[in-house]
Amino acid sequence: MKLVIAIVHDEDSFELIEELIDNGYKVTKLATTGGFLKAGNTTLLIGVEKEKVDSVLSIIQDVCKTRKGAVSMPSPIVGSTGVFVPTPVEVTIGGATVFVIDVERFERI
Amino acid sequence: MKLVIAIVHDEDSFELIEELIDNGYKVTKLATTGGFLKAGNTTLLIGVEKEKVDSVLSIIQDVCKTRKGAVSMPSPIVGSTGVFVPTPVEVTIGGATVFVIDVERFERI
Amino acid sequence: MKLVIAIVHDEDSFELIEELIDNGYKVTKLATTGGFLKAGNTTLLIGVEKEKVDSVLSIIQDVCKTRKGAVSMPSPIVGSTGVFVPTPVEVTIGGATVFVIDVERFERI
Ligand code: NI
Ligand code: NI
Ligand code: NI
Repeated sequence: MKLVIAIVHDEDSFELIEELIDNGYKVTKLATTGGFLKAGNTTLLIGVEKEKVDSVLSIIQDVCKTRKGAVSMPSPIVGSTGVFVPTPVEVTIGGATVFVIDVERFERI
Repeated sequence: MKLVIAIVHDEDSFELIEELIDNGYKVTKLATTGGFLKAGNTTLLIGVEKEKVDSVLSIIQDVCKTRKGAVSMPSPIVGSTGVFVPTPVEVTIGGATVFVIDVERFERI
Repeated sequence: MKLVIAIVHDEDSFELIEELIDNGYKVTKLATTGGFLKAGNTTLLIGVEKEKVDSVLSIIQDVCKTRKGAVSMPSPIVGSTGVFVPTPVEVTIGGATVFVIDVERFERI
């Protein structure tokens, strides 16, 4: 048995939990409040048979891979109406940190 | 030294923490917000000497074992007054998931 | 790779997170709600190369070491005005519990 500890961005956490559960894994979500630089992260605990670790990692990779996204930010370019025009800005989103830890003993009570 | 990670139902967590502390164990309670299927769980961290793991597991077993319980649910049988009558419904409650992990180094500062 | 799990007092957590980040470590802060005796604790996860464990422990030691502090408590000695006079009382503050756990596999996605 292995324990997968996955630290993911909040915006990916719902889809990730859904995908994991759809694939038959059990997930516990810890409430994570960020430190200075880590606001907006969620920590998941996933207990899994050794043979399934690759499958779990591949689900995390699929859902959380870093990717380009667009956020609308108030633009410094003021439109002819004098109103700030929101312009989409490309940002990198996603990413995850995953620790796999050996479980010496596992009990479901 | 071992680290026991116990995921238990909220309704069992207070009694379990009390029992563990009464027996001289130190417990840290992590705020757990459920995923889709895991609402209402609490995660506990218990650092413990190797020889005491069985004792901790037996306390968790005592407090959290799955058991029959009754919850009152609004009944589909409407009483003569026209009011829904709450009837006790038997449900299975309790249960816990426990991971025991080896601790390479332990420091109390 | 090692995972350092540090349980520290809330009042030390901000300084500790800042020090760890200043030294290039990544920290995830879990929201910890205390059990009966553990109110006011914060749990941090720090993934770190084996060679850096001592450095992390020494930062935790520096920030969280137990030390004398003073809190103002309403004094039993009533001043001449008949008002309770707050007197500083020496208390021991700080302290931390640290688990170092081996990480079998580490992925940054
Ligand atoms: Ni990130
Ligand atoms: Ni359950
Ligand atoms: Ni303390």
